[in-house]
Order: sequence, then C-alpha cells, then structure tokens
Amino acid sequence: MEVIGERLNGMFQDVGRAIVEQDKRVIQDLAKRQLAAGAKILDLNVGPTAEDAVAAMQWLVETTREVTDAPLAIDSTKAAVIEAGISMVGSKGMINSSKGDEDSLDRLMPLAAQYDCDIVALTIDKAGIPRDANGRMEIAMRIIERAMMNGVDLERVYIDPVIIPCNVPDAGHHPKEVLETIRQVKLISDPPPKTTLGLSNVSQGTSQRPLINRIYLVMCIAAGLDSAIADPLDKELMDAMITTELLLNRSIYCDNFLDAYRK
Amino acid sequence: MEVIGERLNGMFQDVGRAIVEQDKRVIQDLAKRQLAAGAKILDLNVGPTAEDAVAAMQWLVETTREVTDAPLAIDSTKAAVIEAGISMVGSKGMINSSKGDEDSLDRLMPLAAQYDCDIVALTIDKAGIPRDANGRMEIAMRIIERAMMNGVDLERVYIDPVIIPCNVPDAGHHPKEVLETIRQVKLISDPPPKTTLGLSNVSQGTSQRPLINRIYLVMCIAAGLDSAIADPLDKELMDAMITTELLLNRSIYCDNFLDAYRK
Repeated sequence: MEVIGERLNGMFQDVGRAIVEQDKRVIQDLAKRQLAAGAKILDLNVGPTAEDAVAAMQWLVETTREVTDAPLAIDSTKAAVIEAGISMVGSKGMINSSKGDEDSLDRLMPLAAQYDCDIVALTIDKAGIPRDANGRMEIAMRIIERAMMNGVDLERVYIDPVIIPCNVPDAGHHPKEVLETIRQVKLISDPPPKTTLGLSNVSQGTSQRPLINRIYLVMCIAAGLDSAIADPLDKELMDAMITTELLLNRSIYCDNFLDAYRK
Repeated sequence: MEVIGERLNGMFQDVGRAIVEQDKRVIQDLAKRQLAAGAKILDLNVGPTAEDAVAAMQWLVETTREVTDAPLAIDSTKAAVIEAGISMVGSKGMINSSKGDEDSLDRLMPLAAQYDCDIVALTIDKAGIPRDANGRMEIAMRIIERAMMNGVDLERVYIDPVIIPCNVPDAGHHPKEVLETIRQVKLISDPPPKTTLGLSNVSQGTSQRPLINRIYLVMCIAAGLDSAIADPLDKELMDAMITTELLLNRSIYCDNFLDAYRK
C-alpha cells in the first residue's frame, strides 16, 4: 500500500502562497515531512492561483527534486501542464490524471508510453460518474484497452474509481460501489492494473473528515486498494493504514510496528 | 451490526469484586452505560473467582434484569452455568458459547432449541483452532448440521471464527483467514447463520490494543460481520463501527451521525 502525498497542492493556502512567492523552503519542508511520514510518491499540483501554470509546475518539480529522488505525480487537468512536468521526471513520474473518455485517454496515454511513467485514470467519462460498480468497470475496461493499444504496461496504470462525498443526498451507495470496483479491477486482467483513490473526497463537507477518511481507507485497503492520494501528515490516518497492513499480514508484528513502518 | 457488550465479566477487577461482594450498583451501572453507548446485547460472565459459579450467574442475571430488558448472553465454559442462566432469560438470551466439536454441540444445541435462544458456536474443536478459512468452514458446516438436527433456526446461530492475537509467531495469517471465513459463512446456507467475533483477542499482548481492535473491527464489518463481543465504552471503537456502517450505507449521513446512532 503506497500513499501518494497530497499536500504539495496549491489549493492549500501555504502551498499556494509559496508557489506565487517562489518560497522553496515551504515546498521542500513539506516534501521532506511527507516522505518521513511514510509517503512513497509526492503529488504536485500548482492549484488554481498560478498565472502561468506550466512555469509554476516546472518550478515545483525543480524545487522538489532538489531535496528528493522520490517519484512525483504531476497533477493537473491541463495536458500542457502535465507534459511540462512529466518531461522533467520521466519514468519516476506519474500522470495524475486522465479521465476515462476516449479523448482524454487518446491525449494522455501516449504521453505515459513516451515517458514510460505511471498514469492514473479515473472511471469518469463525458456522462459523468457512474452510479455503480458495473458502470465504473465499463470505463475501466476502456482504460485498459487504451493502455494496451499504446503499449503502456498495465502495472503502470492506476485505476481511480472516483469516490464522491458520503453526505451527498441519494449517493450513500457510492462508497460500497467503489469498494466493489476495487475488488473487480483486480480480476480484470493478469497482471491487473493497480488501483488508487483520491481519498479525502469521501469526507468533503462532513463534520468528521479525519475519522471518515481513515475508516474508509481501512475498508478500501481490505478490498485490495494499492495506493491512495492522501495526507501522510495525518498521523491517525497513517496509523490506521499501517495497522491494516499488519492485520493483512503484509508486515510482522513488533511492539513498535508503527514507528518501524515509517523508517 | 450489533455490539455484545463485554464489560460484565468477572475477569475485570471491578466486576469480579462486585460479584464477590454482591454489589449491585457496579453491575447495574455498567449495564446501563454499555447500553447507552450502543450495545444491543450484554454478555454476562462470572469469571474465574466466583466460588459457586451457578449461584453467581443467577445473581448476575437477576441484578442485570432489574435495570434492563435487553438480550443477555450467558457466557461460560461450564454447561451447568449456561443452563442456570439461560433458563432465566429464555428467548431473550444467547448461549456463549459452544465449541464446534460434536460433544459440545450435542450438549448445548438442545439447550438452544429448548429455550428458543441464540447460540454462539466457535470454529474450534478437539484438534484446536484451524490454520485457515477452509478448516474453519469445515467446523462451521458441522455447527450448522447440528443446529438443523436440533431444530435451531439458523438465524439464531452465531458462528465465531476465533481470532488469535496478531503477535503470535507464525500466526500472522489468522486475521486474513478469519475475514475470509466471515465472507464464506454468509454463503453457506440460505438463510445463512450469523457471525460474531470475540474481538479483543486479536490485540492480546500487543502494545496498541485499542488501535488494533478498532481497525480489525472495521475490516471485519466490511467483510460482513454481524456482531462482535467488544467494549462499547471504548468510544473510538464505537465511532469506528458507526462510521463503517455509514460508509456501507446502513445509515444516512447527518452532521451528528455519531450521536444519532447512540440514541
């Protein structure tokens, strides 16, 4: 189970300001702290405030690379921003993300092939987020087909089944459908693609964000989730993740198993 | 998901002393607090210290019944103690527990039929605790067969797949095998028996008991667990359970969903 650290995102005030002011210290400190807390990949998103998003992403990649060789996820809705970032990190990079419609996949899957990098693809298309696991699996099949057409190794494809907030009226079935999708994706091909999830969306707008995030993460890992875009600086979230891995026999108990994971 | 409150057990010092001193206040207070915290059934176990275990169980049932009509689980390894208790509570009772060998089942399953009560049966027999889910399912089949032979409704049978502590050397696979057993038990018959688990055994002897208990409970509920013998006074455990139920769409989100469950 890999955590993709979500904190280097211009949506957070401290990061947004650091990008505008080109304050390297804030970025590099957050990069190092997320890795020390157990993140295996760092997500980079310049957010909505940067005037020149391409230049901002280039600065963000450079600044982060000065302190770590860890894989970097280039997170943007704009193909030009993704290309600018991924061309700098190459095979130690992750495209985050493509939607699951043909236009998006035809634009981004060739980039993943060209740079031999990971790619996150969302089970959402022009019709929106499917109501159930079956609808999500139809889009997952299209993603896999396009990966194969472009010669992208399926182990570099991360399917994100897209969770919506659990407080949306008449949408209370989505968390279960996402769990079912995670299970089914692992059966779709051999080897199967990986799975990931933009976790914190499940709790958006609720009164108990950290609790809901960590309980849902445990459920997703138990269903087979390979990675999550989440906040590694949330200690209780990481403790929950580490304990779930222990109970799935992916690590061996010792009295300091929580600290041992982080080292 | 039902919590069977575990606190009225003579193994706990306060309860052991109250049983010896016939201090009703301690017992009744714990009964009421567990129910207020969300327990649906109260487990009664006189523990190892009572000189006359039958008389102690009778006193414990009487004392608890003075303050609540909630179902009571009569918890003992001695058939005479179980019979003394279950004869007092009848169909609002639960026998806790029978082992899964034929001798135990032949002694206790007829009692469940006679009193039309629930019965917990453990997937353990004279050969011990099976290594994997398959071994546990073989015993579960025997339990179901004996229930049917005795005319006990399968919805009153609770299979407990027996979890061992996660720190036992070379036993790290047990938590996964128990999860798999929980899934398989629900497919064994139509209607299927229920499932339960003596939860806190998973963390026995570890340095992180509450954390391990609540993470494992979330995993078990996601796998289909119907009930657990656990401590409802552990607020974080109950919050984890309530949130899991929310995310499985068994309740509807409101900002005070944690308090709403308890009411």
